[in-house]
Order: sequence, then C-alpha cells, then structure tokens
Amino acid sequence: MSTAVLRLNCEDAKGVVFNVSKFIFELGGNIVDAEQHREELDNRFFMRVYFDRSEMDLSREALRQRLDDLAARQGWDASLSFSEDRKRIAVMVSKYDHCLYDLFLRQQYGELNADVALVVSNHPDLGPIARQFDTPFFHVPVAKDTKADAERRALGLFEEHGVDLVVLARYMQILGPAMVAAYTNRIINVHHGFLPAFEGAKPYHQAYEYGVKLIGATSHYVTAELDRGPVIEQEIVRVHHGHSVGDLIAMGRDVEKRVLAAAVKAHAEDRLSVYKRRTIVFG
Amino acid sequence: MSTAVLRLNCEDAKGVVFNVSKFIFELGGNIVDAEQHREELDNRFFMRVYFDRSEMDLSREALRQRLDDLAARQGWDASLSFSEDRKRIAVMVSKYDHCLYDLFLRQQYGELNADVALVVSNHPDLGPIARQFDTPFFHVPVAKDTKADAERRALGLFEEHGVDLVVLARYMQILGPAMVAAYTNRIINVHHGFLPAFEGAKPYHQAYEYGVKLIGATSHYVTAELDRGPVIEQEIVRVHHGHSVGDLIAMGRDVEKRVLAAAVKAHAEDRLSVYKRRTIVFG
Amino acid sequence: MSTAVLRLNCEDAKGVVFNVSKFIFELGGNIVDAEQHREELDNRFFMRVYFDRSEMDLSREALRQRLDDLAARQGWDASLSFSEDRKRIAVMVSKYDHCLYDLFLRQQYGELNADVALVVSNHPDLGPIARQFDTPFFHVPVAKDTKADAERRALGLFEEHGVDLVVLARYMQILGPAMVAAYTNRIINVHHGFLPAFEGAKPYHQAYEYGVKLIGATSHYVTAELDRGPVIEQEIVRVHHGHSVGDLIAMGRDVEKRVLAAAVKAHAEDRLSVYKRRTIVFG
Amino acid sequence: MSTAVLRLNCEDAKGVVFNVSKFIFELGGNIVDAEQHREELDNRFFMRVYFDRSEMDLSREALRQRLDDLAARQGWDASLSFSEDRKRIAVMVSKYDHCLYDLFLRQQYGELNADVALVVSNHPDLGPIARQFDTPFFHVPVAKDTKADAERRALGLFEEHGVDLVVLARYMQILGPAMVAAYTNRIINVHHGFLPAFEGAKPYHQAYEYGVKLIGATSHYVTAELDRGPVIEQEIVRVHHGHSVGDLIAMGRDVEKRVLAAAVKAHAEDRLSVYKRRTIVFG
Repeated sequence: MSTAVLRLNCEDAKGVVFNVSKFIFELGGNIVDAEQHREELDNRFFMRVYFDRSEMDLSREALRQRLDDLAARQGWDASLSFSEDRKRIAVMVSKYDHCLYDLFLRQQYGELNADVALVVSNHPDLGPIARQFDTPFFHVPVAKDTKADAERRALGLFEEHGVDLVVLARYMQILGPAMVAAYTNRIINVHHGFLPAFEGAKPYHQAYEYGVKLIGATSHYVTAELDRGPVIEQEIVRVHHGHSVGDLIAMGRDVEKRVLAAAVKAHAEDRLSVYKRRTIVFG
Repeated sequence: MSTAVLRLNCEDAKGVVFNVSKFIFELGGNIVDAEQHREELDNRFFMRVYFDRSEMDLSREALRQRLDDLAARQGWDASLSFSEDRKRIAVMVSKYDHCLYDLFLRQQYGELNADVALVVSNHPDLGPIARQFDTPFFHVPVAKDTKADAERRALGLFEEHGVDLVVLARYMQILGPAMVAAYTNRIINVHHGFLPAFEGAKPYHQAYEYGVKLIGATSHYVTAELDRGPVIEQEIVRVHHGHSVGDLIAMGRDVEKRVLAAAVKAHAEDRLSVYKRRTIVFG
Repeated sequence: MSTAVLRLNCEDAKGVVFNVSKFIFELGGNIVDAEQHREELDNRFFMRVYFDRSEMDLSREALRQRLDDLAARQGWDASLSFSEDRKRIAVMVSKYDHCLYDLFLRQQYGELNADVALVVSNHPDLGPIARQFDTPFFHVPVAKDTKADAERRALGLFEEHGVDLVVLARYMQILGPAMVAAYTNRIINVHHGFLPAFEGAKPYHQAYEYGVKLIGATSHYVTAELDRGPVIEQEIVRVHHGHSVGDLIAMGRDVEKRVLAAAVKAHAEDRLSVYKRRTIVFG
Repeated sequence: MSTAVLRLNCEDAKGVVFNVSKFIFELGGNIVDAEQHREELDNRFFMRVYFDRSEMDLSREALRQRLDDLAARQGWDASLSFSEDRKRIAVMVSKYDHCLYDLFLRQQYGELNADVALVVSNHPDLGPIARQFDTPFFHVPVAKDTKADAERRALGLFEEHGVDLVVLARYMQILGPAMVAAYTNRIINVHHGFLPAFEGAKPYHQAYEYGVKLIGATSHYVTAELDRGPVIEQEIVRVHHGHSVGDLIAMGRDVEKRVLAAAVKAHAEDRLSVYKRRTIVFG
C-alpha cells in the first residue's frame, strides 16, 4: 500500500468533502481515513485525508500538480505528503538523557513513523547514547557570544542531513530567531510544566512552591515567544505535599517523555495543523 | 440548522466516502462532520456522516427513500436519523438515586440531546425525584413469579411513551428475554465494575477482596448474556488498601454516573455502532 | 466509638511522635490513625492523630486543657477537634446549581461528614433546591454599593447558624476583606481553571483561546488575593480541538463538583493543614 | 543519616503506636515517618516506621535482638531492614527490552533505591543491553524437559549474587514451584492486562476482542497460581475502536514499565506488606 496525506484548510463552504473525495476517487485513489474540523468562531474548515494511491496511475509530481491546480481554483490552502517520505528528525539535547532514550526506543519499536537522523548537543555527554543507536552525534558548544554561529552550524548540519523536524528533547538553550524562522511549525519542544502555568526556568520548583496538586508537561511548537507556541500535547501526574522537588523532577521525567513522543508521532504522521495559536490534532 | 446523521457499514470498497459525499452534495446537503472506521481483521467499513439538510429540497421521507435505494444498490447497511427527533428515554431504577439525578441534571443542562420520557421502578422510593423534574414515574413491582407480567407492563409503558432507549440506571433486576429482544442495542446498563473483571453481583466486594488498585464502572448494551454486552464506556478511579468496601461504593458512584451519561449521550447523538461484540464510538 | 483529631505542627525535633502517643496512651486513648509530614526546606514537622477516646476518663474540656498544657511546654502549635462536632457549612451560590446539588447529595449519602446549615445566594434562583433538601435559604442581594452591608448580613447569618466552614459553590462575587478575615482557612472556593493558569474571569474561554489539551478545576482556601489561596485539590479532563467553549464548560462541571467536594470532605475531617501557601492533605 | 524500616503486624490492640514509638525513642532513634493500617474485616493492625538511627548507640545486631524480644513479648510479627542494605535485584527477561531498559535507567537516575545485580534470560538477545549498563548477563535456556534444571541454575546464580528480589520484566516463562517457594513475596511480575480481567496468554488480544475501552497492566507478587498473586500496582490507558492489537501492544509498553517500576521501588523501600491476597502499600 502506498499512501499519502492531504491536508487543507479553507473558508467553510458547501461541498468541500465532496470535492476532495471526488478528486481522489477520480484519480483512482481510495480514502482510508478522513477527518474534518470546523473552527467554531472563525468559520474556518480543516480536513485531513489519508488515502491509498497504489492504484493511482500518476506520478507523485503529477498528483501534486493536480492538487495545486484544484486548491488554487477552490481557494484551499492545501498540502500533500507521501508516507514513504519518512520524516527525518534532528534531536537537540543537553545533558538529560530520558527523552533521547525514549525517542530512540520508540523508533526501534516502530512507533514513531520517523527516524532520528542526527543528534546535536551543546554538551558531549550524550554522545555514547547516540552511538549505541548508530546515530551521528554532533557536539556544537554554545557560548553567549557564539550562539549565532552555533545555530548556523546546527542549521548547516540539518540541511546536510535532510532534516524535516527539529525536536528539543530537554535542550537547555533558547533558540535564536534564525532557527525558529527556518523551521516554522517544525520545531517541537517539551516544557516541563503545565503551560501556561509555570513558564520559564525551573517549573518544578515553581510548582512545588505554589503547592499545586498536579504537575504536568507540555509539548508545543516553538515560536519566537518562549514557552508560548501552540500546544500539541499535555499530560499531568498527581502529586502531594509529601513530594519533594526532587520527586517532582523524577515523576516529571515520565510525563515529559510521553508528551514529547506523542507530539513527534503526530507530526510525523502529518496529523497536526496549526490555526492561530491552537493545534488541530487529527486522529 | 436542520441536521441528520447517516450511519452505514459495508464491506470495505473503493469510493464509499465519495459515493456518500456525492449523495449528500447532489441533494443540496452539507457535510458538517464525517468519520470512518475500518475493522482491521474483517475488512468491514463503518461511516458516520453528520450533515446539514436545511437547504435540501426534499421531505424526510423522500430523503430516506433515496438513501434506501442507494444503500440497496451499493450493498450498504445504512440508517438515517434526524436531529429534531430527540431520543425519548425510559429510565429504570430501583433504590439508588445517583444515576437518576445525574441524568435529570444533564438533561436540564442540555448535555444529553435526549429527554427522559418516564421513570419505571420496581420500588416506589424514587418517585419524588421524578416528580421534582416533572417526569412521569411508574412503580412496577417485580416478584419472582410476576416478572414476565411486570416486563410486559413496562414494555407497554415504553410503547405508550414512544421510548427509543431504555437506560438501566442501577436497576437491580435482570431483564427478561422479551425486553432484551424488543430493544436490541437500545438498552444501556451501567455495571459497577470494570468488565470483564467482577461480573455479576457485588462487584465492589469482589474488587475489595481481590485487592485491585483501580476500581471502575462499565456502561454497555444489554444482551441475553448478563454483563457481557458490548462495552460503550469505561472509567476507573484509583483506590488503596485503606479504602473500605463502603469507600469503594462511594467512589464508584461518581464513576458510574459518568460512564452511564457518556453512553446515553453517545447513543442519543447516533454516535454508536455495534459490530460483533465491539462498539464503534464515533467522534 | 467517640473519636477526636489532634493536629500539631512544630519545629522538627526528636520524640514528637513518642510524646504524642504517650499523651494519648496514658490518658486511655487509642490511636486509630496517625500521619506525619516534614516540610523539607523549613525543618517544620506536622502531625495528625485520629484517636478513639471512648475509654478516656476525661471530659472534653479537661482533655483540651491537658493538650494545651503539653503543647505549651513542648512549643507545639496544636489543635483538637471532636468527631461528634460535625462541621456546619454555609454554601454560597449564585445561579449555577451543579455544585450545590452535588454537596446536598453527598451529604445525603453520608460522604461529607458535615452538614449544610444554610445556603446564601445573591440571587433567588436556587432557593427551591435548598428547600428540596430541607435547608434554609437566604437571598442576600449584592450590589456595588451595598456589598459591605450584604457581607455583614451574611456574616450575621453564619453566626446565627453556627457556621464552621464557608463554601463558595460557584459564587460569582469576590468576597470582601471582612469575611476573608473572619473565616481564615475556613472558606473554600472552587475555581473553574487549573490554577495558576487562567486566574480571574472566564477561565474556560481563556483555556479555549490558549489551546490547552487539558482543562481543570481547583479548590482552594480563599485569601485576600483573588484565586491565589492555598490549593486543596485539582483535577483535569482531556479536551481536544473539536471541543467548543460550551463543551469545556459542560465538561468542567463534573470536575468542579469533584474538586470542591474533595476539599470540603477533607476540611470536614480535619485533614487539612496550611503552611505558607501549601496545604498538607492528610490521609 | 542512617535509617531503618520497622514493619509489624499484630492483632489490633491499644498502645501499639505508643509501644513502637517508645521503643525507638528510648534507644535514641527518631521517627521520620510512620504509617498504620487496620484491616477492617479482620481486626488486624499493620505499621511501618521509618526512623533515623544515627544517634542510636547500638549495633545492628543488638537493635534487631531488642526488637525481636519486644515483638515476642507483644505478639507482633515484626521485621527490620536497614536502608544501607540496598536490595539486589535479579531481572529475568526474554526478548522484550522495554521494562529492562526502564529499570536500568531508573536505577541510573537514583529512583529505585535498589540495584540490578544481574540479568537472567532464556534468550541471548538482551545481553548487549545488560552490558551497556555494566551488569552481568546470563543466558539460561529453558526447554520443556530442562525447566527444573534451568531454574536450579538460576537459583544458584541468585544466591551467588546475593539476590533479594526477583523481577520478571516480561519474562515469558512460568516459574516452577521451587523458585516461587524460595522467593515468597520476593518475586514481582508484570502482567500486561488489567487483572483479574484477561489472565493468561495474549491479554491485549483478549482485550481487543472483548472491546474494552481501557487497557491496563498489573504488577503483582508471584504465587503458585498463575496471574493470581497479590496486586501491587495497576494502571490503565484509554483506547478506542480505532486502535489495532498492535496499537494496544505499543500503548501497553508504557503502562507495563510504570507499574513494574512502581512495584519494584515500593518493595525496595520496604513499603509493601501482604495480607491474604491484598497488598498494603505504605507511603
């Protein structure tokens, strides 16, 4: 089975589902799964169609061209991706290894539908883990006055390795505007707090002092505003007065791994659309 | 907006989504939401389409006829329901009032998309609650040798009140085959245990003795086999060694209410399909 | 069984558990349950002891005097409450009825270990519900320039009815300083958001716009700072892009009821201590 | 700080807490944490005391002797363990690596309060992982007619390595009676189903066919009866009709890891007591 994902959004109008299904049907495709969403307040329509194109007698390029033509006529904002083009991920880390291990293991289990193409770190410590999983590791140190250079180097590595998605797996540096601009809606970060509570540094310490009874973690796309990009996934875990900050940190590791992996998987399967500051998570 | 729900299932084949959306589009309807499901092991395809028919120039009967014709041609097993036909519910209770209160309140808040048409009980105790919510209450006592009669009386009441759905809200009697047959896939029960664990009587006592760390409740369609009908919704709550059976019962009340209400709401919105012993819960 | 709860906190020191258990043992009491907590960062020790005093040959007053003497000698901050003194609750409401119904029903089921003594509202709407549950209802309107008077009237009612605990069950007014001062750590509010995210008005709207994937509710003691008092209980429910603000409001009702009831129950059982802005929730 | 854990159970009687705290106080110890539990139906009392013995002027042996004397006089069933005696774990695995990785990583993060002393497997596949974490690995093949021999060999290895706790981390063999007897209440298994539902083989397949809406995993002590030992921890994850058996297996991995790690950690911290078929999980 050779499959593809068509995502579109447009002003809400009659017949979009019909027109999309007609397009696919007449070219010989078969819809495996389709989902819609209507943004209540804005009259905006979103659709994701996952279809089998094994029996389409059409090259990838031709299919893309046909879709572009239709989208132009209909006023759709449409995109197409082919399942055989597995996403290539650059994982950025510092010294914490739990999210990195988790991504490697899920890749090994076939859960992610994506591949870690390289690991980039501002510290050398996690190199051995990358090597264990046969993945190139690059130590790109970041100092205050070399930050722009370091990001340029990282961007160069991403290009070289054909990176589609950048994953900040507890990377302890704030990205500069160049990188954020180069990978708009293609950089996923995990924040170790339940956003919008506890933005910024040391969220577990903040949570401890505030005395919350649930701590959480949040995966989100990275935008220019720190810890304010569109939320992809959140999870929480129950804590009580007896838990120390250290306990929160330990309990948080599990949650961080899960929300990050869920976001990476959803992105890799082309199940995410962003509208304003909200994400639509299909399927 | 005048809306309707079309549900169908058929052997999986190319073009079903196209044919359904074409049918609705050509008659002037507009798909608001559509969802599909494929039963992996059986090559069976399910679809639910929620569409706006305000601009369809067609009576309800004509629309139904057209659909029946198409379904016959295509080999679909299809059904149609109109949102203006709110489901009418018969709630059966004994002495526990928590699920009954919960259903009445949710109806009042507009959560259920259905109306409690009458309450039938084998005990008189909950009559005053039904009256508070301006709903007819019928005391239909059940004794061992009058059970069949009592069910006939209940069935008569259901018919009289135009009942679409029977909800056993902690009704402490096992239904007889006549009633189960009369309302196939239209009787919802809440079992106060996480099925298939702890079938039968006193599931909280069973759970206490077994020493589980989570207790749950299950809403399901009623079939001839006690506590074995297709599961609609389940939820759990965490318990520990310090909880007595009485605590489990109290904690369970909250869960019972939620799983029952979720099932009733899903049924009322025509979001449930049954295949073998599994339910498909759309959207 | 005649039981009592002793709570104390003091600087952490050797022998506190011993001294407490000795005190109870020598007076003929029997410890049913005891729990401790150490505030890691401050070297502060907290203890709650639930004991049977049926065989203590001592009046309540004498027992209290002995404890006061011991506490003075040991430098403990101690308090004693007798289980037969069920807490008397004033529930303050506006127009939403779900939390009020929930408290009444839990009282009826014997879950709360407390009694609703009266209901006070700035609107007359919920009077019939209070009457259904045989509870006095007082309509105390609040206008901008009569607010202080209204609170004085409410405080007078609380005194008259021997109120121990004030519960704001979706009461849509901000309390004035006089009431907050009169019932320090004895006013419980439910906020319909996961604090500290979404403080203030319309938290579900805020949550919708932000695009969070979990919404929550928080019960907390009321302090002078709006929505910033010590958190007692929090719970969340998973939401997705398809949920409207109206859906969030409906889903939130369930969570609000649960976190409020849990807080009321814990307070009623003398299981709460406050230290700085954190609550210690015993057993 | 040099700490120890005293656990006892006895018929419920007045003064147990006092006698325990007196014992510790008079020997110069300081109670850090104490917890009690009363088995409602059986008048059985359980207690766990975690105390600091840094200032006790007493050898370990002398302390143990004193406790034994007191326990004999009082009719307690008491045990003592010293925190410096970290538990030594034998992990048994087959081919699934997720629980093994998880245990190694938690050990590295200092979460477990125990050390993996060796890994024993009936397959050679996971040897490299053990080596990565510098832990001895033994391949002990199991065939139908060599099973007893294989277990003897494993028991020999356990003895050699001073094993306190055996952890079956998705070990795909049923243990024989000799091993179960040798490590009563010291063998922890993870079952990939929510027990008592779905005992035996292929629980995810069973769950899929049954159509449950929640799948779970259970960690429990191993007894002679397969999948029927006292439950230590359970967790669930929500599933829906769209999930395939493969999805359930993938989602289950996360849950299996967590319930197994929680059980191992609780056992390692001497927080578990077993009474009949229930576990008491302190703290």
